[in-house]
Amino acid sequence: MKPVKVGLVGLGTVGSSVFNLLISNRTELERRLGRTIDVVHVGARRDNPVCNLSAVRVSRHVLDVAFDPDVDVVVELIGGTTVAKEIILTAIAQGKHVVTANKALIAQHGQEIFAAATEKGVGVYFEAAVAGGIPVIKALREGLSGNRIEWLVGIINGTGNFILSKMRNEGAAFAEVLKQAQALGYAEADPTFDVEGIDAAHKLAILASVAYGIPLQFDKTFTEGISQIEIDDINYAQQFGYRIKHLGISRRTAQGIELRVHPTLIPERCPIANIDGVMNGVLIHANAVGPTLYSGAGAGGNATASAVIADLVDVARSLDVSAANRMPPLGFQSAAMSDAPVLAMDEVETAYYLRLTAEDHPGVLADITRILSSRGISIEALLQKEVSDPAHDLVPIVLLTQRIKEKEMNAAIAEIEALDSIASKVVRIRLERLDA
Amino acid sequence: MKPVKVGLVGLGTVGSSVFNLLISNRTELERRLGRTIDVVHVGARRDNPVCNLSAVRVSRHVLDVAFDPDVDVVVELIGGTTVAKEIILTAIAQGKHVVTANKALIAQHGQEIFAAATEKGVGVYFEAAVAGGIPVIKALREGLSGNRIEWLVGIINGTGNFILSKMRNEGAAFAEVLKQAQALGYAEADPTFDVEGIDAAHKLAILASVAYGIPLQFDKTFTEGISQIEIDDINYAQQFGYRIKHLGISRRTAQGIELRVHPTLIPERCPIANIDGVMNGVLIHANAVGPTLYSGAGAGGNATASAVIADLVDVARSLDVSAANRMPPLGFQSAAMSDAPVLAMDEVETAYYLRLTAEDHPGVLADITRILSSRGISIEALLQKEVSDPAHDLVPIVLLTQRIKEKEMNAAIAEIEALDSIASKVVRIRLERLDA
Repeated sequence: MKPVKVGLVGLGTVGSSVFNLLISNRTELERRLGRTIDVVHVGARRDNPVCNLSAVRVSRHVLDVAFDPDVDVVVELIGGTTVAKEIILTAIAQGKHVVTANKALIAQHGQEIFAAATEKGVGVYFEAAVAGGIPVIKALREGLSGNRIEWLVGIINGTGNFILSKMRNEGAAFAEVLKQAQALGYAEADPTFDVEGIDAAHKLAILASVAYGIPLQFDKTFTEGISQIEIDDINYAQQFGYRIKHLGISRRTAQGIELRVHPTLIPERCPIANIDGVMNGVLIHANAVGPTLYSGAGAGGNATASAVIADLVDVARSLDVSAANRMPPLGFQSAAMSDAPVLAMDEVETAYYLRLTAEDHPGVLADITRILSSRGISIEALLQKEVSDPAHDLVPIVLLTQRIKEKEMNAAIAEIEALDSIASKVVRIRLERLDA
Repeated sequence: MKPVKVGLVGLGTVGSSVFNLLISNRTELERRLGRTIDVVHVGARRDNPVCNLSAVRVSRHVLDVAFDPDVDVVVELIGGTTVAKEIILTAIAQGKHVVTANKALIAQHGQEIFAAATEKGVGVYFEAAVAGGIPVIKALREGLSGNRIEWLVGIINGTGNFILSKMRNEGAAFAEVLKQAQALGYAEADPTFDVEGIDAAHKLAILASVAYGIPLQFDKTFTEGISQIEIDDINYAQQFGYRIKHLGISRRTAQGIELRVHPTLIPERCPIANIDGVMNGVLIHANAVGPTLYSGAGAGGNATASAVIADLVDVARSLDVSAANRMPPLGFQSAAMSDAPVLAMDEVETAYYLRLTAEDHPGVLADITRILSSRGISIEALLQKEVSDPAHDLVPIVLLTQRIKEKEMNAAIAEIEALDSIASKVVRIRLERLDA
């Protein structure tokens, strides 16, 4: 069979890995497909010395790749949401299939891109956009297609997981570990995108769309970062048998879809609680199979390239599929997308970890439990420590609650903070038991 | 689009789950496919009261399903290797696609079945044959297709994992826990198939074939069960930071393919070491992405049905794919299968845990280390306990070794057992660090 001809746009870390892996794993790919996958055209503003480009056409004007009639599939790996979008829409308009690792672009402009692809009968593949080399889009879209997906939680930002793991292992503060992560190249000079959960929100929006067949709704995703997490909280969590992870969480409820990224206490005996360092993991709860977990490298050139090439193999296998049978980008027919609303954070139900700093006199605990109880909030566990600040007679009170709507918890926290005996803001971290 | 018409053979636990899930998840499936998946013909020796069969044709002569011209896909869920094989080969001969959960049949007769399917240009799908609802065949065959798979280890028998987990958690002996597993329905009255590793060997042979594109070689798979594992060994392993799991292990080496099922010490910090109870997990090491882990329910009606239905969805999406582009059963073109030999167990290299019972006098340890050293076996860690049996002055000596060929270890053990100071057989459990 004739080769599948690839136009590769972007020759950075991932692009160069794709280019070189297609060469080094060429025999294995040909054993699978009965044909080769050949990069015939590279679009890059500059060469990358790790790639031997002598046998391929190279364009500095990267859009040329999308117009090349010799190209069957365009692989977009330049990132960003402007030129990348133009390249992808042009490739689709030219009748070419598209593979991309661009989570920001899919999360923000996926609808437009998918509509164009459906119109032209071509495929759009983006396994590499979420959790790097872990085939979790494929698991949701195909492997679990016999199920109704109920919820999923993911450690989908390696930088944040590295920081939280290191804080716990070394008892070091956030700011200190962030500096180490930056020195190691795991965090950017401006770490906002990773540590505030924006990157995770992009990926969560994509996972939820593929899980439930809903439009991409990154803009409605609730986001809370990890920069406020203190060692004390990690340690208290551990005393209760929990770990703190920065999770993307999505749940399909009768009222709507939850989309939220925030630090979360999860039971330490859950396998996902033990996914540490820069590793990623996604736990999916589906109605037939129950929970399944997928973990591995969430970033890095070769890991991401692994996902890109798997998408290319899927494209190769589906070149002659009819438009009606072609895998829709989200795994659901475009005419069958659900319009279930995204649930406002106020309406989300979850459990909580609360840490209060209170004056050490009788009656404080009674006030707190009265306030919680009046809002229907049940306490599951409580830890009152010895006086931590003898000069001011302040004690930390740490408690875990049962599930309750966020708006009730917000109101309760406001009331608690208004008590004279409460010395500072209440620390509140959400908690998920992951058991149903 | 017109429905995909399914002939379902077998209406036991899995068959009835498939039948009912296709009904309860019908809307979700139609949202995915733009068509429904309808069971039109059921072959079963008797009805199952949990299934409403009023709208489908029912045959007591199950082979009739494979001849039904109205059926597009035959789902074989009766198990066994005789009638099941006849049904599948008949269905293929009739030009029908096949989905099966039958690991014994695929492991033992896969070559013949796949050859027939390739000849007729139809698909054979068997996701449900390995690790129940975990889409690990899909991960190997598609999700990691950009990689060269290097090795994999799997907890692929829930019964064995349940027993080992419970022995560790409760300090109970094998025989006692086996009885509990039998009472709970997790183990058969004759547990040989599960606890001696035969079931796991079926699944391992399938995983290895899909991983490397080699023929199914169940008959060459080394198998050692868990019935000899003692609580002492679980506890010593724990002192070294290891857990004992019953693993299927396959590695591609320059000399050949390792295919082995045996109890194995693995580091407790590895996520796969924390997959407990009846859960299954497969850790795959591939050359681009590195290690990825897949875990979830490995058995049960609905979990297995989840995999069967995912296969049906794949069949539905590929109905009009050309024979050349159709996914080969093992993910590799039949003309491109590797003839790499299966490595004899003697030639396999692994690390070891050894427990010896020795007389408590000077020189014993020197004898042991001399023997090991003469065979090139390095000791990584050693634990010499206080006298355990004062009446006879016997002490346990526990040690972990570096990697060495099995034949060297066998020879060393024979020499050690011949020492006058060694009081009983050496307990030997293989050990894998899973780090490369």
